Amino acid sequence: MRLALEEAGAPYVDIALLPEKEGGGAPAIVRYLQDKGAKRPPFAPPFLKAGRQVIGQTANILLYLGERHGLAPRDAAGRAWVNQLQLTLVDFVAEIHDTHHPLGPSLYYEEQKAEAKKRTTAFLASRLPKFLDYFERVIERNGAGPWMVGRRLTYVDLSMAQVLAGLEYAFPSATRAALRKRPRLARLHDAVFARPRIRRYVASGRRLAFNNDDVFRRYPELGG
Amino acid sequence: MRLALEEAGAPYVDIALLPEKEGGGAPAIVRYLQDKGAKRPPFAPPFLKAGRQVIGQTANILLYLGERHGLAPRDAAGRAWVNQLQLTLVDFVAEIHDTHHPLGPSLYYEEQKAEAKKRTTAFLASRLPKFLDYFERVIERNGAGPWMVGRRLTYVDLSMAQVLAGLEYAFPSATRAALRKRPRLARLHDAVFARPRIRRYVASGRRLAFNNDDVFRRYPELGG
Repeated sequence: MRLALEEAGAPYVDIALLPEKEGGGAPAIVRYLQDKGAKRPPFAPPFLKAGRQVIGQTANILLYLGERHGLAPRDAAGRAWVNQLQLTLVDFVAEIHDTHHPLGPSLYYEEQKAEAKKRTTAFLASRLPKFLDYFERVIERNGAGPWMVGRRLTYVDLSMAQVLAGLEYAFPSATRAALRKRPRLARLHDAVFARPRIRRYVASGRRLAFNNDDVFRRYPELGG
Repeated sequence: MRLALEEAGAPYVDIALLPEKEGGGAPAIVRYLQDKGAKRPPFAPPFLKAGRQVIGQTANILLYLGERHGLAPRDAAGRAWVNQLQLTLVDFVAEIHDTHHPLGPSLYYEEQKAEAKKRTTAFLASRLPKFLDYFERVIERNGAGPWMVGRRLTYVDLSMAQVLAGLEYAFPSATRAALRKRPRLARLHDAVFARPRIRRYVASGRRLAFNNDDVFRRYPELGG
């Protein structure tokens, strides 16, 4: 989502990163979620406020941004295909999240370490290769250079690169080994992070580093 | 998805239910998924073939059908809101699925019964009420009775009713108790299943009964 805003050069304020005394941080997010006057309340972060419209759910936000900022194909079938790939990535990310939270989000990681170990083992053995093989095939079938859909970068390429970067944080050796066998994904990742605006963004220090409070977590005891 | 096609009165063939000798069943689905000539292969079922376009991911299929069959608002902001709610329902369904598969889809239920029990307990105690409270609030804030968005039924109402029916199969007493406390959801469920075309569909016998090979499963040992 942030990569899409950066690639588009769209001005935005990242409320989560804004200091609390400037009206940002976690309290500001909670205020939005609990606003009793909201006609269309989001269930959870992330959400985007664009004028008076509040848009929730990552794939929905990207659908909105992609259309407005030239990060999606112009034809309806192409847009549906990008949305389909984005939703498949959302499923993939949910499974990545579940490696450290197999018993769900209502318990801490420390309360489910044994189960997390089992789930991670199954994930690395069968789900990670299955998803990565699929996305590698999508690039191959597209047949037009580093991207997943058509000849120009779309928002799902940004999401794919972000997921690969997150996987490299969470499971460094498993991911490096997987990418050596999937050159198209490796090339897509590098092509995204070589985009001038994305490079400037990463160099700016504004990009939040991966950390163990988020979806992608590094717990060496889980393996990978 | 099937409820949307039925409510729209759209002609369709349910390939999964078609006998194998007529070119249907599981082999036909696998053939689509493994078709080496497919430019845009889906990752997994369900998918919809509409003319030459193959559309995957439930929320994406409903986005497509909703627009074409009058099951979505006409304005872009309304359509985005329906998509957002649908994606929140997809998240909810993923958590419902994980109650019987906390260690992931690559192991059988029988291999993860102890973990499933723990996850179900956490789900019933905290996630089920959180999601249902949210959807109840969405109907309340909409303020235009029984539906979630606007004054007319949209596809997300059909999805919501289907999820409630699935929950009643999987966790009968927990769901009945939850709906007694959330009258708007109970009313939405009844309003959907009272629609003439939905009633005819249910009465026809063509609707697949809930069963333990699918997302919603009844395992009394898990509780609920």
